[in-house]
Amino acid sequence: MPSEAAVNRQWILKDRPKGGNFEEVLELRESAAPDAGEGQIRVRTIYLSLDPTNAVWMQYDSYLPAVPLDGPMHGLVLGVVDQSNSPKFQAGDLVSGLGRWADYFVTDGQGWAKLPDIPGLPLTAYMGPLGMTGATAYFGLLDVGRPKEGETVLVSAAAGAVGSIVGQIAKIKGCHVVGIAGGAEKCGWLTGELGFDAAVDYKASGWRKALRAACPKGVDVYFENVGGEITEAALDLLNIRGRIPFCGAISQYNATEPPPGPKNLSVLVAKRARMEGFLVLDYGPRMGEMYREMGPWIAEGKIKWKVDLDQGMENVLTSFRKLFTGGNTGKLAVRIGEEPAGG
Amino acid sequence: MPSEAAVNRQWILKDRPKGGNFEEVLELRESAAPDAGEGQIRVRTIYLSLDPTNAVWMQYDSYLPAVPLDGPMHGLVLGVVDQSNSPKFQAGDLVSGLGRWADYFVTDGQGWAKLPDIPGLPLTAYMGPLGMTGATAYFGLLDVGRPKEGETVLVSAAAGAVGSIVGQIAKIKGCHVVGIAGGAEKCGWLTGELGFDAAVDYKASGWRKALRAACPKGVDVYFENVGGEITEAALDLLNIRGRIPFCGAISQYNATEPPPGPKNLSVLVAKRARMEGFLVLDYGPRMGEMYREMGPWIAEGKIKWKVDLDQGMENVLTSFRKLFTGGNTGKLAVRIGEEPAGG
Repeated sequence: MPSEAAVNRQWILKDRPKGGNFEEVLELRESAAPDAGEGQIRVRTIYLSLDPTNAVWMQYDSYLPAVPLDGPMHGLVLGVVDQSNSPKFQAGDLVSGLGRWADYFVTDGQGWAKLPDIPGLPLTAYMGPLGMTGATAYFGLLDVGRPKEGETVLVSAAAGAVGSIVGQIAKIKGCHVVGIAGGAEKCGWLTGELGFDAAVDYKASGWRKALRAACPKGVDVYFENVGGEITEAALDLLNIRGRIPFCGAISQYNATEPPPGPKNLSVLVAKRARMEGFLVLDYGPRMGEMYREMGPWIAEGKIKWKVDLDQGMENVLTSFRKLFTGGNTGKLAVRIGEEPAGG
Repeated sequence: MPSEAAVNRQWILKDRPKGGNFEEVLELRESAAPDAGEGQIRVRTIYLSLDPTNAVWMQYDSYLPAVPLDGPMHGLVLGVVDQSNSPKFQAGDLVSGLGRWADYFVTDGQGWAKLPDIPGLPLTAYMGPLGMTGATAYFGLLDVGRPKEGETVLVSAAAGAVGSIVGQIAKIKGCHVVGIAGGAEKCGWLTGELGFDAAVDYKASGWRKALRAACPKGVDVYFENVGGEITEAALDLLNIRGRIPFCGAISQYNATEPPPGPKNLSVLVAKRARMEGFLVLDYGPRMGEMYREMGPWIAEGKIKWKVDLDQGMENVLTSFRKLFTGGNTGKLAVRIGEEPAGG
């Protein structure tokens, strides 16, 4: 039964961004919330995930079609089912999936999942280590990178949402773990609270030398998040049969001209090494594996995580900007609406 | 028993080449042939293989240490054992391995193999489709690229020694095979005599469009031989779960500054694709597999091959130059000495 028309705030994509001019192409507009049609559910957004790849979705067709112009921007959402005309969902269900930068939106529920019931965890855990972020780290490292005990795992953007989880999983698996991050504070967090073996500040002079010193046995798995010079430095340290799970290249998402690839890519030949791209969306059917192994680690505090939580729909764009300026530590999300009582 | 001292012509590497100035850094000198020491064999060179990777060996440590200065240049050799102080070889054995740009040289025989006895094949077959070249094509395509029947296989440097074999193996395996080569003549050879489904002349205007048209179902396996713009074009056509066996990057071997990598490398993420380097030297223990499957194909004429055979030690450098100017079609080798009578 449709409720009385709620006000719906939405970030509308007016044009394709160029060079990161998000403020010029996105506009916050209000309208009446849509009602769920036949077979549909309406989701009320509680938490909106902000991810570097959102900038790609704005610009062009990639693994997903580009976001249509003059409609609401797309994003990963944790929300509550507010109206249901679908037999698979009930009003009140907590769900996650590909939603909108909006208070409310309707969907046929394809690709949407109900959250598992793991006691004692805050809802925000499903935005971070048990959400898409955690799955990206878990499957990228273990399924694509396949580290063995005693090997060296190097992670770029290591203080980021994905990188910080990658490093901790690698530690649990018995690897020598080195993170690359920008700034002393982030590096201190990695080697302190997170237990990385070493962290290298790529903004400090002499960082390449420091990186070499931090990886005395070379690099067996390089978890690629960034592109550019850091990738070249990692390639130079790669061991024979090294593996590079290729998660993304955040340094390049907002470039107006695509920047060149690594000059030393042919290291892959000499080292018989493998670089392999992956998308977390492909692992939807295997999320259960991740919940089973990671759930206890999270509940027991073996994996530390942070959700960098901003507040309010009106601040989404300011918050999004932080992804590209190194302003966030841990998974970035915005609280859009209240958690259900008792949730 | 040492024979009377034979004259030994050797190409001596005097300095590291820059920008392909091979003529300035290599010099042909004569001296007395060395005699085999304890446990050694002396090999008389019959055929010297010339390969793009030789240019890398001259310059820096790679998967092999750089060739020492003031000594003879290294190269793959098919020769005859001329003196043996090793229990594993007898004078008269036909052998292949990593030798020297020289009439004679001595070795402890590590890594040297006697040729298998497949009747009815000329000795030059072991310089081409049943040598390192054939093994590079065979294992790179089948072990790294893993094409399935009906998939599209794209090969760069397709009229080259490796590429021409790659394409023919892919045809035998039931793939749609497209080659990229420079010039109408080479392209005609690919689609005519070799049976490729299509060939694209990268020196012709509009080649990118032609490439797209030649791969209507995209590219499942891209056999990477070249680097640069061609790699970028191939990446743009890559299908989901595409594979890139990374054999080499001939366009870059003589660059004074390493050129940038492909701008669109992050296609690997969106396509969940794999780029994997390999070295034929790793497949030494598996050469038998190749002889068993490829031997009959060669003997029955199912695989056409050409050895572009030049003559004489004094012409080695002129011949070598052809590799980088597109001057050769098929495997390049130089006949240095006579085949044994009855061989």
